[in-house]
Amino acid sequence: MKAVSLYEANDFDEKTMKRLLVHDSPYMKILNFNFKAGQTLPVHNHDIEGEVCLTILEGEGEFVGAEDASRPAKAGDVIITDISEPHGLNAFTDLRLLVTIAPPI
Amino acid sequence: MKAVSLYEANDFDEKTMKRLLVHDSPYMKILNFNFKAGQTLPVHNHDIEGEVCLTILEGEGEFVGAEDASRPAKAGDVIITDISEPHGLNAFTDLRLLVTIAPPI
Repeated sequence: MKAVSLYEANDFDEKTMKRLLVHDSPYMKILNFNFKAGQTLPVHNHDIEGEVCLTILEGEGEFVGAEDASRPAKAGDVIITDISEPHGLNAFTDLRLLVTIAPPI
Repeated sequence: MKAVSLYEANDFDEKTMKRLLVHDSPYMKILNFNFKAGQTLPVHNHDIEGEVCLTILEGEGEFVGAEDASRPAKAGDVIITDISEPHGLNAFTDLRLLVTIAPPI
């Protein structure tokens, strides 16, 4: 069993999104990205099989997809997308994001 | 892309833990369990390969493992365990839990 308190293990960086690798196994990869208001995860994709789940733990922003289509996002929102589909995020407030990838990249 | 606002899609039940299936694919299964204070996910395990990730979105409680070993848990805490290892949860306050299983059961 592995336990991580994200609010203690990861903080914010004024310059850029702050990244924490929470877990990496043959089954899944888990990351925590913290954004100050205005910071961004640029839209990207990987041409491989699998899914990514984005969960907003705290804050407000918007998910961005293909052709810059966007969708408001707030604490408690979950987005599941193929790893091969474009996905990104813009933070409007300080925002904590949990990213789960399976199978792991 | 699939989007679910957990705080709108699932609520609480005075009698028992309230369960929502968020996503089920060949890659991962995602569930949201909401507990009123005092409700419990009994310790259990499945004799299969893979991992389960428990993320507390809101509230306080304790994770319970093998031989009733317990560990305090609060919003922002993530626990990763083998599906084959005993795991459970006791909610001390109203609590929202995200459960990710890969590969899916």
